Amino acid sequence: MNGSLIVVGLGPGDEALITPEVSAALAGATDVLGYAVYTARVTRRPGLTVHPSDNREELARARRAIMLAAEGRHVVVVSSGDPGVFAMASAIFEALEQMPGHLELDIRILPGITAMLAAAARAGAPLGHDFCAINLSDNLKPWELVEHRLRHAARGDFAMAFYNPRSKGRPHQFARVLEILREECEPARLVTFARAVRTPEESIVTVSLGETREEMADMRTLVIVGNSATRRVGRFVYSPRSAFTGVAE
Amino acid sequence: MNGSLIVVGLGPGDEALITPEVSAALAGATDVLGYAVYTARVTRRPGLTVHPSDNREELARARRAIMLAAEGRHVVVVSSGDPGVFAMASAIFEALEQMPGHLELDIRILPGITAMLAAAARAGAPLGHDFCAINLSDNLKPWELVEHRLRHAARGDFAMAFYNPRSKGRPHQFARVLEILREECEPARLVTFARAVRTPEESIVTVSLGETREEMADMRTLVIVGNSATRRVGRFVYSPRSAFTGVAE
Repeated sequence: MNGSLIVVGLGPGDEALITPEVSAALAGATDVLGYAVYTARVTRRPGLTVHPSDNREELARARRAIMLAAEGRHVVVVSSGDPGVFAMASAIFEALEQMPGHLELDIRILPGITAMLAAAARAGAPLGHDFCAINLSDNLKPWELVEHRLRHAARGDFAMAFYNPRSKGRPHQFARVLEILREECEPARLVTFARAVRTPEESIVTVSLGETREEMADMRTLVIVGNSATRRVGRFVYSPRSAFTGVAE
Repeated sequence: MNGSLIVVGLGPGDEALITPEVSAALAGATDVLGYAVYTARVTRRPGLTVHPSDNREELARARRAIMLAAEGRHVVVVSSGDPGVFAMASAIFEALEQMPGHLELDIRILPGITAMLAAAARAGAPLGHDFCAINLSDNLKPWELVEHRLRHAARGDFAMAFYNPRSKGRPHQFARVLEILREECEPARLVTFARAVRTPEESIVTVSLGETREEMADMRTLVIVGNSATRRVGRFVYSPRSAFTGVAE
């Protein structure tokens, strides 16, 4: 019996954002692995074994998923959002690199609605022009690289989406991010704090960069910084399709 | 009777990537507007009027959608991919800005699977670390801004996803993009050409930057350039979660 390993994105929370192909993959699974908060979103049924694990155990989870698939199980690894954006797909390939005997496994990645696109849709269209996605956590990269990328993104006049802006373990780094943005961008630049998007606790707030405070973000917040042309229309925020107003520098 | 205007993303092609909320919006529509290639994907039924239009008529289409909603119709505007990424959501807000009498309309944006995430999932996880999305068309921005952003994205060591890399009307600009990448990145940098992703004509090819040729892209291609750490594992391409290998400059 040939096993399979499918890495899926459950979207940001609302079931109405889960693609039919992800629902079908879950319906065909014998084993579901993931961070406990995400496996809790999977409906239990006879024949399905759910393996919840801790947030920080991504590589161990990836190895276990590969081993189970190699034993002939139909394994689904769940991420929130999209599995290829700061989530489990890269961890699976890192583990696979260390387990070259399993390179021929049937592995598929199924995309999902990533947090920045769900947040942008709620706010209007702040990512309607060129943009960057940056993970602000320095768990897996030097903090200097975060600052380096921030400055290039700002100088390139990209809109920016920040994942993992702030956590209890590193509460002051987001203040530094705001400081760098204030050095690089004008005070009127629009910044959207989208918290718990597409869950019952959702809140979407847009302020000018001059009004931002570090407490506006936590680990459930997706932050979107507009480009120099991003503006409000009514209750919405959007980036125009056209940028014939000059290059940032 | 109060009308509504919903802007939806149909994903890159495969019906299995259309979210349930987008399917529900289409089921409740009285009018569907969009580029003819995308409205062709909507199932016809009694009570639904489909308004196909040309690719270049985005603002006129947006105005018409707003007018129909203001008349009490339930209007759905369709984009491929995600409507907030180089698509109709920004055009709707541009039109709304010119029609301030309609600011209180019931307008919603529903996200979809954008081409870069569908392409990345097919290739592996090349966008698994910080990345940029850049529209290479200069229809709506000066070409110098494209070059400016490209250089900042490369110097920030972002992975990059290019939308609209090449068209009949501007066949040589993609050669210039490759030239800039060769100046900024090492020849072994991995570049994925994902054509017609999630359609019957899909093809996914990954080569080194040194092997790229401008003819490898056309208007149906989504190009993904890895960061300096992006690598192959078996038949996949992925960007590791960790970047503790040094800052680009």
